[in-house]
Amino acid sequence: MSHMAERAEHLWGGWGDPANAMALPPSIQSLLGVLNTAPAPATPLADLRPAPSRVDPGPLRDIVGAAHVHTDDATRLRRSGGKSTPDLLRQRAGEVSSAPDVVVCPSTHDEVQALLTFCSSARLAVVPHGGGTSVVGGLSPQADRYAGVVAIDLWRLNSLVDLDPVSRIATLSAGMRAPDAETILNQQGFTLGHFPQSFEYATIGGFAATRSSGQASAGYGRFDAMVVALTVATPAGSLTVGRAPASAAGPDLRQLFLGSEGTLGIITSVTVRLRPLPPETTYHGWSFPTFDEGLDAVRALAQDGPLPTVLRLSDELESTLQYSTDGALLIVATPHPHPHPLPGATGLGPEIGEKWLRGRYSGPYLRDALLDAGAFVETLETAAFWSRLPQLYRAVRDAFGDTFLLLCHISHVYETGASLYFTAVGPMISPAHWSEVKAAVSDAILANGGTISHHHGVGTDHRDWYVREVGELAIDTLRAAKRRLDPHGILNPGVLIPLP
Amino acid sequence: MSHMAERAEHLWGGWGDPANAMALPPSIQSLLGVLNTAPAPATPLADLRPAPSRVDPGPLRDIVGAAHVHTDDATRLRRSGGKSTPDLLRQRAGEVSSAPDVVVCPSTHDEVQALLTFCSSARLAVVPHGGGTSVVGGLSPQADRYAGVVAIDLWRLNSLVDLDPVSRIATLSAGMRAPDAETILNQQGFTLGHFPQSFEYATIGGFAATRSSGQASAGYGRFDAMVVALTVATPAGSLTVGRAPASAAGPDLRQLFLGSEGTLGIITSVTVRLRPLPPETTYHGWSFPTFDEGLDAVRALAQDGPLPTVLRLSDELESTLQYSTDGALLIVATPHPHPHPLPGATGLGPEIGEKWLRGRYSGPYLRDALLDAGAFVETLETAAFWSRLPQLYRAVRDAFGDTFLLLCHISHVYETGASLYFTAVGPMISPAHWSEVKAAVSDAILANGGTISHHHGVGTDHRDWYVREVGELAIDTLRAAKRRLDPHGILNPGVLIPLP
Repeated sequence: MSHMAERAEHLWGGWGDPANAMALPPSIQSLLGVLNTAPAPATPLADLRPAPSRVDPGPLRDIVGAAHVHTDDATRLRRSGGKSTPDLLRQRAGEVSSAPDVVVCPSTHDEVQALLTFCSSARLAVVPHGGGTSVVGGLSPQADRYAGVVAIDLWRLNSLVDLDPVSRIATLSAGMRAPDAETILNQQGFTLGHFPQSFEYATIGGFAATRSSGQASAGYGRFDAMVVALTVATPAGSLTVGRAPASAAGPDLRQLFLGSEGTLGIITSVTVRLRPLPPETTYHGWSFPTFDEGLDAVRALAQDGPLPTVLRLSDELESTLQYSTDGALLIVATPHPHPHPLPGATGLGPEIGEKWLRGRYSGPYLRDALLDAGAFVETLETAAFWSRLPQLYRAVRDAFGDTFLLLCHISHVYETGASLYFTAVGPMISPAHWSEVKAAVSDAILANGGTISHHHGVGTDHRDWYVREVGELAIDTLRAAKRRLDPHGILNPGVLIPLP
Repeated sequence: MSHMAERAEHLWGGWGDPANAMALPPSIQSLLGVLNTAPAPATPLADLRPAPSRVDPGPLRDIVGAAHVHTDDATRLRRSGGKSTPDLLRQRAGEVSSAPDVVVCPSTHDEVQALLTFCSSARLAVVPHGGGTSVVGGLSPQADRYAGVVAIDLWRLNSLVDLDPVSRIATLSAGMRAPDAETILNQQGFTLGHFPQSFEYATIGGFAATRSSGQASAGYGRFDAMVVALTVATPAGSLTVGRAPASAAGPDLRQLFLGSEGTLGIITSVTVRLRPLPPETTYHGWSFPTFDEGLDAVRALAQDGPLPTVLRLSDELESTLQYSTDGALLIVATPHPHPHPLPGATGLGPEIGEKWLRGRYSGPYLRDALLDAGAFVETLETAAFWSRLPQLYRAVRDAFGDTFLLLCHISHVYETGASLYFTAVGPMISPAHWSEVKAAVSDAILANGGTISHHHGVGTDHRDWYVREVGELAIDTLRAAKRRLDPHGILNPGVLIPLP
């Protein structure tokens, strides 16, 4: 079975492997009774027909070979949009206007470079495709002004290019999925330690392009902090940025491409810092009387240590609904058999920690089950300095109003602050209605010292707030850099940077 | 005594406070006998006359007040160039062509902004002046094409703007010198932990603009890693970058201004991450049989911990000449009364550690004494991944040839690699001769995986190698950003980014 066929089930209408589709737990089924939802099945993939492809595949075939250029409906549909709830609702309703005209699968940096050179000359918009897991509209460019849309799927760039065990660095091709990277590195005694909820499908290049952060970020850091070097293809040519463990040789240009979401170039390989695979990791649960008390304890660990590998504090409602515990649940993972005692907390033992571990990637499956059952569910996240967090937490809750059950946790901590991750569950609403709620919440985030995204990225959904967060002059500076690298603006147009 | 008068002695012809001028230790005096040097006193400041100022001070006085605009010879000479050995040799020989036409001392961000707006409209080149301690020609712009050169000295931007003890962050004005910052923060129980050799004179804004790294970087990190946010004035307007402890909202624009060396804007305030002031720090010496064995031990500490605050390994010649010890000396500072045992090393106790601590800022004073005595002395540095370091060390030594005594230490370590810092001492040579040696060494650095600078920066001296290190497309991308922020190219022209 080819990888393309293997991916067929993954990238349309739902998350991941249908074999892992999830039944709703009884607690959530009873919740749905309260919400008074009615089943809302998705339109079957086979019933959908995208508009005819506008792109001549010939020149693309000359670059990557005919076997790697796809214009069939199913492949195009599977590369259509990302995995936000509005994306899913549109897809489930049979809306297919975002399908690319053609899907091209290069296998080398040079092929990616040649594709970009050609697409730039032909004024074809390009959407880079890694795992396809964007939840912020990062795969939904505004391409009306272009002759067509080419999805460049990087899955064939899937190799370990180099591993330097002395320096503890490895160069990985950008299309490699996270589980493949972990498997290969584990065999050499190393780990990246990067386990976001999208782990099963997301790619190394996608992590870099979106500044991903994983569930073990307390111990291993954000993905951008692991990146030692990047190789990037742009319509204007190729470059490699990052050369040494640290440098004072000018601005850190890695940081221009990290978080650029495919708008400045296509990342084709990433050199990452490795850590030795720990002999074991234990997961324990602790309970604090309140979220506020848990927050103080988490801050003490983040600022003064000892810092666990995973540090995840749920607020009272999330603790009750997801874990049936009182107070605020803290999950702590450490590379030691016994956890440190936590002042003010009640130890709940390893069972609840292991339960969290088993379910760590199941959120998106649960979402599909909830959507099937006619409920609305979506997540959003932010980060702020510690002194602003309590006020930010309240302001976001207020902005959500009482339409939703609102769950929150802190799962990424720093010396100076932390992230807040919200899950909203409620009766089904339209994407337009959600868009209004999300706008109010995004306003509240900016008004209370939060960033518009700690780890989901900007895409198209956060773009207006991103502009407000960094300011027009900063956006214009990015535009100037983009014009040099992408003179015809073909790369993911309208994502991250507003069209002029 | 005004600060301007106070600075009079600091910024011409030698380093720091003349009261701290250093006598050469006997060991070095006997070395000079071997080198056969003859005293070479500097031209007195009073004998020098820069060309008449070409700039009308009137509009500048309107912005900052007449008392803060200086066109007298002495003030202009003191803001002339930096503190590299070639800078000092030119100054000592009476060469004054790099004196700015006027020195302006704003006291607020808005005044800096107004100065840049005016200078851009009048096509006046601008050199931002912090501590004036650049050792890479960062204060020697190529300004022939401009109507004049305005030095903007930031010393009056010298306040603690904000301190958030919960989030452990503080906002400091960019012109604040490091000792003032430490004093103010220490009073609140905090420290930056940033102690570069330029500590006594360098400023917060200068640290940011040059990606400084201090002697305690093992424990506290590089300065760029401490920066949470920056406020910057540019000819095109002002911006603030950095908002949260971490963010996935696009490229990290702090990293565009960090290391920009005054070419993209003038940093007017910096928000930094703080650490609690440790109750005590102990300094111990350890001796390894060889530099190679010390290097392996230092790598083990950097990769697997425990990581001391200071970790500084001298090679055999530096250990002998500077510390009269056999083998390779390792200085270790820890915030504990007792150091960890180091396998393979002989403990030398605290005396030698405290000797290093007392002399930690004395290098530049020693250089002045050597230059007075007719010897040549200069330093340069690089960084590379661990696997490349032994080869890089040998290649740099080979490129230096045998004209100089060459001392080396490692003082900045990372999980993936470390820096190498070289000191060359020998008979007096001309700046042109040194330039040839430095070119050969810089070629060797690039050919062996090193970055052209780990913490000194690029300036004008490293510019050609910087272009080779990052490539023309990266340089052109920076140029595009600069054109947006500085349309007339007035900011430190020719520093970092080659003139088009």
